[in-house]
Order: sequence, then C-alpha cells, then structure tokens
Amino acid sequence: MKPRWVLLPAALLVLLGVEPLWALPASTGNPEVARFLFVLAIMLLAGKLSGEMFERLGQPAVVGELIAGVILGGSMLGIIPVAPDDSLTEIIKLFAEIGVLILLFEIGLETDLKQMFRVGRGASSVALVGVTLPFALGALFWLSPFVPPEMNVASRFTTAIYIGATLTATSVGITARVLTDLRVMSSLEAKLIIGAAVIDDVIGLVLLGIVATLATGAAVSMLDVGWAFLLSVGFLVVAIAVGFAAAPRLFGLIDRMRVRGVLLVAAFAFALLIAAFADRVGSAMIIGAFAGGIILSRTNQFDTIESQIKPVADVFTPIFFLSIGAQFDVGLLNPFNPDNYQVLAIGGALFVIAVVGKLAAGWAVPWRKYNRPAVGIGMIPRGEVGLIFANIGLTAGVLTEDLFGAIILMVIGTTLLAPPLLKWSFNRWKAADPP
Amino acid sequence: MKPRWVLLPAALLVLLGVEPLWALPASTGNPEVARFLFVLAIMLLAGKLSGEMFERLGQPAVVGELIAGVILGGSMLGIIPVAPDDSLTEIIKLFAEIGVLILLFEIGLETDLKQMFRVGRGASSVALVGVTLPFALGALFWLSPFVPPEMNVASRFTTAIYIGATLTATSVGITARVLTDLRVMSSLEAKLIIGAAVIDDVIGLVLLGIVATLATGAAVSMLDVGWAFLLSVGFLVVAIAVGFAAAPRLFGLIDRMRVRGVLLVAAFAFALLIAAFADRVGSAMIIGAFAGGIILSRTNQFDTIESQIKPVADVFTPIFFLSIGAQFDVGLLNPFNPDNYQVLAIGGALFVIAVVGKLAAGWAVPWRKYNRPAVGIGMIPRGEVGLIFANIGLTAGVLTEDLFGAIILMVIGTTLLAPPLLKWSFNRWKAADPP
Repeated sequence: MKPRWVLLPAALLVLLGVEPLWALPASTGNPEVARFLFVLAIMLLAGKLSGEMFERLGQPAVVGELIAGVILGGSMLGIIPVAPDDSLTEIIKLFAEIGVLILLFEIGLETDLKQMFRVGRGASSVALVGVTLPFALGALFWLSPFVPPEMNVASRFTTAIYIGATLTATSVGITARVLTDLRVMSSLEAKLIIGAAVIDDVIGLVLLGIVATLATGAAVSMLDVGWAFLLSVGFLVVAIAVGFAAAPRLFGLIDRMRVRGVLLVAAFAFALLIAAFADRVGSAMIIGAFAGGIILSRTNQFDTIESQIKPVADVFTPIFFLSIGAQFDVGLLNPFNPDNYQVLAIGGALFVIAVVGKLAAGWAVPWRKYNRPAVGIGMIPRGEVGLIFANIGLTAGVLTEDLFGAIILMVIGTTLLAPPLLKWSFNRWKAADPP
Repeated sequence: MKPRWVLLPAALLVLLGVEPLWALPASTGNPEVARFLFVLAIMLLAGKLSGEMFERLGQPAVVGELIAGVILGGSMLGIIPVAPDDSLTEIIKLFAEIGVLILLFEIGLETDLKQMFRVGRGASSVALVGVTLPFALGALFWLSPFVPPEMNVASRFTTAIYIGATLTATSVGITARVLTDLRVMSSLEAKLIIGAAVIDDVIGLVLLGIVATLATGAAVSMLDVGWAFLLSVGFLVVAIAVGFAAAPRLFGLIDRMRVRGVLLVAAFAFALLIAAFADRVGSAMIIGAFAGGIILSRTNQFDTIESQIKPVADVFTPIFFLSIGAQFDVGLLNPFNPDNYQVLAIGGALFVIAVVGKLAAGWAVPWRKYNRPAVGIGMIPRGEVGLIFANIGLTAGVLTEDLFGAIILMVIGTTLLAPPLLKWSFNRWKAADPP
C-alpha cells in the first residue's frame, strides 16, 4: 500500500507541467483571475503534500509547508508571486494575513484564560528575558569590531538598535502551529510559550513603533514608549472585558437567526473586525484576532464556531506559511558565490544570537518544575514579526540589501530549526501537566 | 422574543458608526489590510442581517444580500470599493469570483448527472429559445426608430448585436441560490433551469467572443463561431469523462493522507484548478467549477467534501452577491433628474425584453407536464455574465456610459424580480417530481 502514495508527488509534477498552458492566448475571462486560482491551488496542494511527507517522516507538517513555500517561491520555481510590481503579490499577502488571523483566532478559541492567568507571571518572565537578551546581544554584536562599518547606511547606533529589535519577537503563529501538530497544546509549557509569545509581540510592536521613528531620524521620548505600551496592553484588556460582557448575549441572538451559516459568518466577521480595530488603535492585528478567539470561547455557541471555522482555516492558514517560505532567496546559500560569505556570516551570527537569547528564556521561571528546554526552544521561531521589521528597515533605508538578506536568513533559520527541536525536547523530557 | 432581534440592525449601525476610527493616524501595520478586513466583515454581517430580514419576510435571502450590496455600494454608503483606482476593488472582485466558483462547485456536487441527461433535451430547448428570443428582440429593438441615433458610438448594427448578446445569458449563480433557498433544487423544474442556464452560459461565452471581436472592428467567420462552441462543449465533456475515470482513485489516495484538512483542501484546490483550466481553454471558469463539482460527486469522499466546503462557501459566496448589488448606481433612479429619463426608458425596454424573452422559454418543452411559468421565471436573472458583457462593451467603446447604465439597470432589475416571482410561481402551481 505504502509505495502508492508516491503517486501524489507525481500528480503534482503533472500539475506543474501544465503551466505551459499559460502560454495559450488569453481567453475571454480575466487572465489574472485564472492565474490567481492556479497559484492558490498549487500552493494549497504543494503545502498539504509536503506537510504529509514531513508528518510521515515524524516532523511537524508546518515545516513541510515552509519548505514547499521556499520551492514555489521567487528564488526557485517562481510560482508564488513575491515581486512588488506583480498584481497578485498583494492579494496572496492578504490571503496569508487572513490565514494567520484565523490561526490566532483558533488559538484564542482554545485558550482557557484562567489557566493563562495562572501562568501569567511565568509567561511574563519568559517574555522579558526572551526580549531583553536577544535585543542586548544583537545590538552589542553590531557595535562590536567584527562588523564591517560599510554595512551601516544609517548611523551605527540606529542600525544596532534596529538589529536588536528584529531579534525580539517570537512568531506566535509558527510556535502555536507546531505545538498543535505535536498535540501538546494543553501542556504547561505550551501555555508559557503562547503567553510569552503574545506578550513579546506586544513589546515587539512597541519597539517597532520606536524603531520606525528612529529610522526617520526623529527623537523618541520615554513618554511615547509608555503610551505605545499602554495602548497595546489596554486594547487587549478592554477588548476582552467588553467582549466577555457582550458576546454571549450577542451570539445567543445570532444563534436564533435562520439564514444558512450565520453563526460562522458572524464569528469570522467578528474576528476580522476586532483585528482591524486592534490595528487601528495601535495594537497588532494578530493580537486582536487572538482576543476575538478568547472572547468567543465564552459563548454557548463555542463548539459550533470551533468546528465550522476549521475548514475556513484549512483553506487560508497554509497560505501564510508558504508565503513566509517564498520570501527566502535560496541563492544566498550558494557556496560558490563569494558575495554570499559576508551575508552568511552575519546571518549566522544573528541566528546564533536569536537561538541562544530565546533558549535562555526557558530558564526564566524559577517557581516550578517544567520542561525548560522546550519552553526556550518554543520561543525561537521569529516568522512574521521579524519579516515585518526587516521589510520596514529596508524601505526606510536603515538596512542594506545584504543585511536584509542576513535577517531573512535568521528568520527562516529559526523557523525551520524550532519544529524538529521542539519535537525532540518534548520526547526527551516530557511535558508538565497544565497548571 | 421577536422584537429582540431588531437589536441586530442597531448593532450594525454601531459598527458602521465606528468608521470614523479610520480617521485615526495609520498604525504600525498596513492600513490597507485593516481596511480590507473591515470591508469584508461589514459585507458579511450586512449580507447575513439583510438576508435574515428577507427570509423572515418570506423572500429568498439572496435578495437581501443583493440589496445590502446596493446600500453598501459605491452610490450609497461607499463601503464596498468599486472604483477601478481603489486597490481593494480588485481584491473584493477576486473574493466574489471565488465565491461564485464555490457556489457552482457546490451545485455541481449536488447534481445527479443521470437526471441531468434525462432532462437534457428539454433543457436544450429551454436554452435555445431563451437565447434566441431575447437576442432577436433586443437587436430588433435597437434597430427600431425608437432608439435615438446618438446612443450609438460604434455602428448601429454592431451595437444592436451587442445589446442582443447582453440579454442572452441567465445567471446560474443567482437562480441556483434562489432554488436552494426555496428548497426545490431536486424538482424537475430546477433541473431544467440549471441545465438550460449552463447551456446558455456556454452559448453566451461563444457570443461574448464574437461580440468582443466585433467590437474591435474585425470580421468574424462562421468557422470561429463553430470552433469557440466546440471548445466550450468539448471542455465540459472531456473534463467530466476524465474526471469520472481518475477522481475516485485520486481522492481515495488523498483520503488516506493524515494531515489536517487534506480532503477539503484537495477538493477546493481541484475546483480552483479546473476553473482556471476552463478559462484557459476558452470556456468559462464557472462552467469549470460546476464540472469539478459533478466529478467529485462520484467520489466516495463526497459527503465529507460537501459538508466541509459549506463553511468555506458561507464565507466567500455572499461577497459575490453583495458585489453585484454594489455595482448599481442608485442615482439612476432619481426621478428629479431629467437626464435619467432616457436611461430609464431604455433600461425599462431592455428589462421588458429580458423578462418576456426568457419567460417564453418556459414553454419550450412540449413533452411533459411541469410548471412552465416557474421555468421561464427561473431563467430571468442575468447577473454576472450580463455584467461582464456590459463591462467589456464599455471598455471597448461600443457602449456609452448611459447605455451601460441602462444595461446594469436591466441586470439588477431581472435579478431582483426573479426570486420573489419564482417563489410565488412555485407556491401557485407546485413543482413536478424529478424525472
């Protein structure tokens, strides 16, 4: 039976082979729409196929999706659009954005806030160490004599702070997905990791605001920092408080409506709205979506919502992971191109700092017996927030193309490293019971 | 209990009221993404709310979605982007496109091909009359002395053919949705309507190809016409034949994969791919998606696919109907603007031709006892294909702005008229049993 499923990669190859069909004269419909459908379908199929292979190899499926993204991405097959002048790039990005929002919404739905509070102090310690250490190490590395001065376009100090900032935020999306793939989402370690990752996203956003201002050359006061922090935390607290009071009644009413799919559509729209509001008040969309999930976990319609949002997540979420993979330029790994050596060396150094800094955060909670390596490893993947930082830095002219490449290397490296390591650490030392 | 659900419109008003939040300074995220999430959420909520009201008033929910689209559209609240220079217009259009594809895919899944064949001859007669009559009447009307010559930008003859062509194709999407809302999808009448609508879409696409060529001023041979027709029909036959042979085995393999959601994702990707291919070989995407559904209805995984695609359809499909509503310029109905009188008169005439021509098609099948008015009425709504025709005509310079408005009036008019009339006709004369 087993050899049979090698038929599936063969089927994919056939599908990829039909791309020459694109050379046919444009038909009466909109050729851009047809290409979009094609890209979307190939991304979904390749992601599932590759995910399946990794799962059969005993690795989390998300790694397969990331690698499928790399292969379909701009530097290899070029099927996933990444060029800014390609009209589909923006649209695939939006799909990816919705994908990560639904993922965080699902995680919020499964989050028990009381348990979260019980790990609150621990998660805060993990987050604090996991932000401070990589930031300090990254900035110090940049100010060290090892870094050639020609890699700074802005002042050396500004670039150092920028580098430090890009190292801070853990990707909740990737970590949560791996924890789910490993079926340890209810463990104490998972609560610590997710809690800390949400907290360091809040800190990361505050840093992003400061750093973006620094990039323009303006001065930043401690008042601005405090205000940005208050906004992000305040949003989360207010949204959840108001949500807990209003949502059960509101969704009780919606549940009595008769049109098809009204409950799912209302929940989905609710998640999108609260994400958009979070963005508007200066917090992050993913934090909004997470809050939305927590709020709806208290409604009586929780079960229906959770089971119906699943197929929607299945369609959107892989696009997020494939998109991250697609950003990676495989050419940077070419050992025959000496231009790459400097980028690889810097990227490697940042990668080591990123790993060590977060790993240490696993030992930040003294008060309990738990799997410390697993928590540290769980904080390693950077993902979307790191990519956002790097993007803004490149656009603002703080980062050179090479430094941008080095950061991307660090982001992708941490993202690919964490899943197998996390699996290994949970097998090696077991997870603790939930608090 | 009943007065309670008026709370929901109030909630929507509150949501609409928060739009001033958009006046806040852009946050660290991408403001376009936030606006997109906001627009999507409002469209979904307004659509469901309005659909619910119409359902409570005893009308099909789709009418509510169309009207919600009109209200949120460019000429009223302006929340749904329709301007070609708005970066979100294209993205909402893509969502709408995926929406109508999933709708047709679902209809395909529910289609029993054997039953379809049993009504094949009847459906062909209905389609033939329903294409010929509106085409001839429309073209003759345009050549009549009632039409002021200044409304022609191209030659009078070309415009007449164009007008005729825009009147031909029934919107399978709207009709199918109404039949589902009314729970008569398994009746003989529904089979006749859907069969005929698919056939006249094929004919409509051939016409579109010819008319688009005419618009450029080139000559069109009978050979071109025959070739275009063969392509469209050939695609449907070949796709279904190959699909029936390969899909059950392929989905049997996929069913043995372990990654989350693989069956749904594979089915969804399959529908997108076959739609894109249909477009590429010169057929229509909706016909491809319909064929995809028919093919998968023969797999053993049919039940799972059908139940899991539903939530995905719930999220995408309403966007299609709201988008159609959003195209309508309410200002055209302003009775105090004399500029509108000519447009209204022309639009009214086209509307009457559109209704009468398709209504007559209900009597095209002599061989059986069935609800003839219902079949005729079911063929009335024009929807997407009519809008595509009008759009191409405007861009190619065959239609004036006014004539474009008149056609849109006809499309929206037929689309709004059909659902309540269809409901009434099924209540009045009952549906026949399936063949």
